[in-house]
Amino acid sequence: MVNYPNGRSQSYSAVPKKQKTLTELSVAKKSAPKSKSLVAFGKRGMNFEAEINATNDYYLSRGLAVIHKKPTPIQIVKVDYPQRSRAKITEAYFRQASTTDYSGVYKGHYVDFEAKETHQKTVFPLKNFHEHQIVHMSNVLAQRGIAFVLLHFADLEETYLLPSSYLITFYYEKNGLKSIPLAYIRENGYKIETNHIPRIPYLEIVNKLCEVQ
Amino acid sequence: MVNYPNGRSQSYSAVPKKQKTLTELSVAKKSAPKSKSLVAFGKRGMNFEAEINATNDYYLSRGLAVIHKKPTPIQIVKVDYPQRSRAKITEAYFRQASTTDYSGVYKGHYVDFEAKETHQKTVFPLKNFHEHQIVHMSNVLAQRGIAFVLLHFADLEETYLLPSSYLITFYYEKNGLKSIPLAYIRENGYKIETNHIPRIPYLEIVNKLCEVQ
Repeated sequence: MVNYPNGRSQSYSAVPKKQKTLTELSVAKKSAPKSKSLVAFGKRGMNFEAEINATNDYYLSRGLAVIHKKPTPIQIVKVDYPQRSRAKITEAYFRQASTTDYSGVYKGHYVDFEAKETHQKTVFPLKNFHEHQIVHMSNVLAQRGIAFVLLHFADLEETYLLPSSYLITFYYEKNGLKSIPLAYIRENGYKIETNHIPRIPYLEIVNKLCEVQ
Repeated sequence: MVNYPNGRSQSYSAVPKKQKTLTELSVAKKSAPKSKSLVAFGKRGMNFEAEINATNDYYLSRGLAVIHKKPTPIQIVKVDYPQRSRAKITEAYFRQASTTDYSGVYKGHYVDFEAKETHQKTVFPLKNFHEHQIVHMSNVLAQRGIAFVLLHFADLEETYLLPSSYLITFYYEKNGLKSIPLAYIRENGYKIETNHIPRIPYLEIVNKLCEVQ
């Protein structure tokens, strides 16, 4: 886990994390200790993104769906090519993603989603979504893809699947509001129970969405 | 364009290229000058990957399909967080992609493909495809996704769409062979005429594949 941004250099060898995801949220919340994102899931031992990745691994291994997280988009500025060694990137920057983080296929359907976490208890901040992601979701829906967001309320220990159509509607109609009320999410979304294996069984709800289509 | 690997440091600001794609091929071909990949499409002014990206932009702008190239997967080792400045990656390496480069949605269908280029004139070298990409394509087909490869013969100026099922079959049945004969590609694939806008109108063939499904 990267404590980002914290003003110092740090090494890690895990799969690179997206710049503006879970970690940023935990840092952004001023009252939260910096290591919050490391302990928030103490009971469950994984953060939200890791749980989703584990869920996708489970679905893939069982032949239920093929859904992957896209690599973090990175702007490469400088690369060294040491003799007899592999290329080494020595200067690069995180770029803003132009699409959502997860996509794949389930029974022929295109599935596309973004996963975000908050420590708020009554609302989900809209700053988690960039306008080009909203546009991307609209484009996906226009092509009859299945698009949604997975919203995790860390302190409440509640996770919801909200179809993108509701997020898009809210985004444009309530232009002045900076957050989606939890009540709106509960009314239009689906609560995901996370007690089982896989940890975040969102595919059951995706299956419902496919049937409606 | 990156001359990769060439034993020296080099700066560029374009979107990062995948480690083992077109550039590697042009470098691998010993008789070709190092700048070959820059001039091979002189007549058309773009390389194969750029043409596909332009095609996808065209499809997106016309509301015909939502298909994106995935970011290059990169293993981040070290990040600096200068005060009052954005995070700077100071050590990172290219990673092998675990899936294919392109995916998206067309009329509800999941579309997934890899694009490769060769300077060979009678065969397409199989080293362009890693086994986990073959496995990924098999997984996609099992979920009823549309999966294929776009194969560009640069010197012939011919481009083919080969459904992944034929690539997979060939890969496992002809385990000893290191290349797919052009005749096999012509017999089982679809030639794409590249004279029009968009440059590589593969969606027409995808539409046929969807109808067959």
